[in-house]
Amino acid sequence: MEDLLNNINHPDDLNELTNEELTQLSDEIRDFLICTVSETGGHLASNLGVVELTIALHKHLNSPKDKIVWDVGHQSYTHKILTGRKDKMTSIRKRNGLSGYPKLKESEHDIIETGHSGTSISSALGLACARDHRGSSERIYSVIGDGAITGGMAFEALNHGGHLEKDFNIVLNDNDMSIAKNVGALSNYLAKLRTDPSLRKISGEMGDLLNSIPGIGSGMFKTMDKAKDSLKYLLVPGVLFEEMGYTYLGPVPGHDIEALIKIFEQADKINGPVVIHVNTIKGKGYYPAESCPSDYHGVGSFKIENGESEKTKTNITYSQVFGETVTRLAEEDMRVVGITAAMPAGTGLDLFQERFPERFYDVGIAEQHALTLSAGLARGGMRPIVALYSTFLQRGYDQLIHDLALQNLPVTIGIDRAGIVGSDGETHQGQFDLSYLRAVPNLTVMAPKDEQELVEMIKTGHKLDNPAAVRYPRGEGLGIDLDYSRSEIKVGKGELLLDGNKILVIAIGSMVHPSREAIEDLKDNKSKIGLYNARFVKPLPEEIIELAQKYDYIITVEENSLNGGFGSAVMELLADNKLQQKLIKRMGIPDKFVEHGGQNEMRDYYDLSIRGIKEFILNILEGK
Amino acid sequence: MEDLLNNINHPDDLNELTNEELTQLSDEIRDFLICTVSETGGHLASNLGVVELTIALHKHLNSPKDKIVWDVGHQSYTHKILTGRKDKMTSIRKRNGLSGYPKLKESEHDIIETGHSGTSISSALGLACARDHRGSSERIYSVIGDGAITGGMAFEALNHGGHLEKDFNIVLNDNDMSIAKNVGALSNYLAKLRTDPSLRKISGEMGDLLNSIPGIGSGMFKTMDKAKDSLKYLLVPGVLFEEMGYTYLGPVPGHDIEALIKIFEQADKINGPVVIHVNTIKGKGYYPAESCPSDYHGVGSFKIENGESEKTKTNITYSQVFGETVTRLAEEDMRVVGITAAMPAGTGLDLFQERFPERFYDVGIAEQHALTLSAGLARGGMRPIVALYSTFLQRGYDQLIHDLALQNLPVTIGIDRAGIVGSDGETHQGQFDLSYLRAVPNLTVMAPKDEQELVEMIKTGHKLDNPAAVRYPRGEGLGIDLDYSRSEIKVGKGELLLDGNKILVIAIGSMVHPSREAIEDLKDNKSKIGLYNARFVKPLPEEIIELAQKYDYIITVEENSLNGGFGSAVMELLADNKLQQKLIKRMGIPDKFVEHGGQNEMRDYYDLSIRGIKEFILNILEGK
Repeated sequence: MEDLLNNINHPDDLNELTNEELTQLSDEIRDFLICTVSETGGHLASNLGVVELTIALHKHLNSPKDKIVWDVGHQSYTHKILTGRKDKMTSIRKRNGLSGYPKLKESEHDIIETGHSGTSISSALGLACARDHRGSSERIYSVIGDGAITGGMAFEALNHGGHLEKDFNIVLNDNDMSIAKNVGALSNYLAKLRTDPSLRKISGEMGDLLNSIPGIGSGMFKTMDKAKDSLKYLLVPGVLFEEMGYTYLGPVPGHDIEALIKIFEQADKINGPVVIHVNTIKGKGYYPAESCPSDYHGVGSFKIENGESEKTKTNITYSQVFGETVTRLAEEDMRVVGITAAMPAGTGLDLFQERFPERFYDVGIAEQHALTLSAGLARGGMRPIVALYSTFLQRGYDQLIHDLALQNLPVTIGIDRAGIVGSDGETHQGQFDLSYLRAVPNLTVMAPKDEQELVEMIKTGHKLDNPAAVRYPRGEGLGIDLDYSRSEIKVGKGELLLDGNKILVIAIGSMVHPSREAIEDLKDNKSKIGLYNARFVKPLPEEIIELAQKYDYIITVEENSLNGGFGSAVMELLADNKLQQKLIKRMGIPDKFVEHGGQNEMRDYYDLSIRGIKEFILNILEGK
Repeated sequence: MEDLLNNINHPDDLNELTNEELTQLSDEIRDFLICTVSETGGHLASNLGVVELTIALHKHLNSPKDKIVWDVGHQSYTHKILTGRKDKMTSIRKRNGLSGYPKLKESEHDIIETGHSGTSISSALGLACARDHRGSSERIYSVIGDGAITGGMAFEALNHGGHLEKDFNIVLNDNDMSIAKNVGALSNYLAKLRTDPSLRKISGEMGDLLNSIPGIGSGMFKTMDKAKDSLKYLLVPGVLFEEMGYTYLGPVPGHDIEALIKIFEQADKINGPVVIHVNTIKGKGYYPAESCPSDYHGVGSFKIENGESEKTKTNITYSQVFGETVTRLAEEDMRVVGITAAMPAGTGLDLFQERFPERFYDVGIAEQHALTLSAGLARGGMRPIVALYSTFLQRGYDQLIHDLALQNLPVTIGIDRAGIVGSDGETHQGQFDLSYLRAVPNLTVMAPKDEQELVEMIKTGHKLDNPAAVRYPRGEGLGIDLDYSRSEIKVGKGELLLDGNKILVIAIGSMVHPSREAIEDLKDNKSKIGLYNARFVKPLPEEIIELAQKYDYIITVEENSLNGGFGSAVMELLADNKLQQKLIKRMGIPDKFVEHGGQNEMRDYYDLSIRGIKEFILNILEGK
């Protein structure tokens, strides 16, 4: 059999292929994906689920004139392969390599950059409006998962899109999963549509039945004639979407290219917005991924023959320590409830979920609701602990201000993946949280230097009567021996780790350890350099004021944007206490989006490494 | 007729009253509301709409044991009156007086503080979960408008609440309005329920019909027996809510206390979550408000006899200047589209809407979607201008970062109501935007010193190929003669307004004018004080570096939180250029939520007034 994949360099190349050949191509792509991702790591299960869907879309459409918007974007690997990027796939998610998400600068076929969930309906609708303003005629398709569609902004867009009646098509890629098993009423609803083929059959029989009754249409049943609209409740299974103003098509089997193309053709003929409900299997075609898709959502390299991870034994992660700490707190305090937004495993709360299922809430991809739900729980006397990734907390910023901080409620937020996240890249960086959290009144903001301090800070947050946030990095801790019995920390109390007389390094969170190593490395100059672990970004330890007077220079080090971040807070404190005659230099992330690459590689690129900090100190010592 | 209202000091006092007396009471309250608000100003139309609903809720429930959560909260006046605050109503929205929204510290009957839309389902669900964890049995009701429910977070909460099956009741207060006329598919759907009473009649006839057919139940229609679930599409008008897991009751006439209490009794008997659809009339009972409710949403004092505003002629507002500028830009550039989230009049975009209806998008209360829609429009070649209030932009923070800034799209955001907003108070302050915007890469952030500069800054944003934000205060401009033909400003270019040699005042936006007045007032010392209008918060004008060297002291003045705000940016700039030996003092809003009160009154309270700035400068001159 001829190798088809090697001859595909542009979506137009699909035009030559028969349906049979397209099916063969999907097998080849699947093998290629498994082979590539087993080496590079990346998103596997979601990409295996949309191989046929992507082929069918590109066969049917004329990209880039026609537009495909990939919601969340981590499922765009086949799209990348079909649009001329196959040979670069081995570089995916690596520094200077392909992004794991759609990227404007990579290809004219990448229409909208995505990474967060639920944005595609809004942007596709915007493209459709723009098209109509310009008077052109391209087709616009967005592809959104059944997990992503539970996010509030997707609903806002559905509501507006149904109202505008614009021509655009939403492919609902329904695999009954977000990263974890899906939750929510909508999910149950979709499951019903998915699993009950009789619904459509009923509609046919019901129509026949009604037509066979002599009274219908004659006025015999007085209100029945008005009921035509109501009949669609029976005739159409996707009534929820129909009520929102969409034509609902499907469900269609998502691994049948011919059926998919047929339904796309049908959708194109319909004026106004269409929801095309496609059933796919996450992890399709690779047994380990298909049988446990959440384990193969994002993976490192693995052995193809059994799917086993190739990574060697590592230190316990911050997420695991967080989960363990919350679970232990919950054992002591009945008021502790755990809340996550579709990330039970990612945040480490799965441990809590297992131990206390009745006190665990996975709200789906719904960060806004997660925070305001926690506000209600707190007002009801509970002590909620919410686990979110830094980048997704951006979605709940208003709720943090308006529902938690304003009412000054005792909710602790564990902010995972703060700072540089590595290979997920620009859309997922946790680089802004210290800046945007610092402005929020009543909020205590902490960052642990290691996993032991994480334990103590979560306990500190739990004890407080105001909202608290603890931000910590993605990945492993330092591997130190943990003592879960250690109690909370005094609010606004840092610790002087090294004494000195010339330069005081004030570091926060993940930057304390490399700062210490950098100073230890300085040998002769070591004794000149002090190191202070601030622990609290808010309230900033007041002892910094006195401490700073002993030194000529102050260096702040943070894994956060320099704009308005931790270093800025230190400057504010010193200025307010008339101490800004000290020369302050700030280390942190400059005013740009951090690209993808290895986590430590990218840290080092921005000098947020032992090497970088050491050189920075040396430059000051040498008067540069 | 006895005066009933004077004897109501607690919801329990309603227990003594007959239904007739309750109706009389509602008339008295309505008169009281009209009379009070005509003097104090405040939210009128929404409060007139829920008089009977509030009475019925308090008659039916046992507050504060039972919980009432008021979504958005501006409709809680009758609730305040019934819970012992009638005599303080004349102080509403005034400094140290009653808040215009529920406030925990005001009353044990105020369960959750609100001000932004769409939060009540989440917090009520949280209260219900907490109740069940504690094993108590209070009833929980949230009251949400049909406008507020279009916000994404309300949908997130509906989705989760339907899944959890908790006992709580959502009163959908449907007046077919948000502040403006409601938009969106959901609104159309509710309108259908509201206006078609035959829907319920049909369901009865249909049931009879089906039962009369011999084949049903006998297996004659093979799939029909499975269709029981589908039948509810016919039997229940609120299928959209039913599909989400809620029992739908209604619609019920919202000004009929007896009918309301009856439906609440019915709802209490149902296990699991219930949506009670209540039809109300915004502005009910006061002709001017009823006939034009959006004009009477939030009002100043007015004459009761004709509803005419009592305010004297004032300067043109920033919102009006914004609307005029966008409209003029749109005349020159076909690519300009205007987007707002349910605030066409409030933001001044109503002018644009009238002139260019086809290029105007009101997305409903959906800030997240507003921004990502604009991203799609921009990618489609348009030049969107989005108008939002500062406090509501917090809802779209992630979309600003992820969908606009990351893709570096040419969208201009007009941020209205930035800084201190006055009588709306804590929930509505625009006090954080400079802090949270400063961290966003690729974003240009501007603030005009007056309405003329607003014109030029909107034009500047429109010309840029990256996202831009212009923040300006609530209310009137300075009353200067406007020249709409003046062109854009060079990015990162401020202006030196006064030259000096000792103290340099660097002011931004609304603080430039009072700073100037304060300096002019200093008489003898005047010549020592320089004044620089920075215009750009990002990028900050580099000329500040050189300028600062001429002065001994620098004062920054901003109407924004001091934490990470404009002053902080100036300190960063100077520190990065080794200039922090200058003594910098920052004026701005301290780290707390600004309470309600007059706009200028609250500015003055925080020294952000001519008086405050003058004293601040004098203190420095006198070495204090």
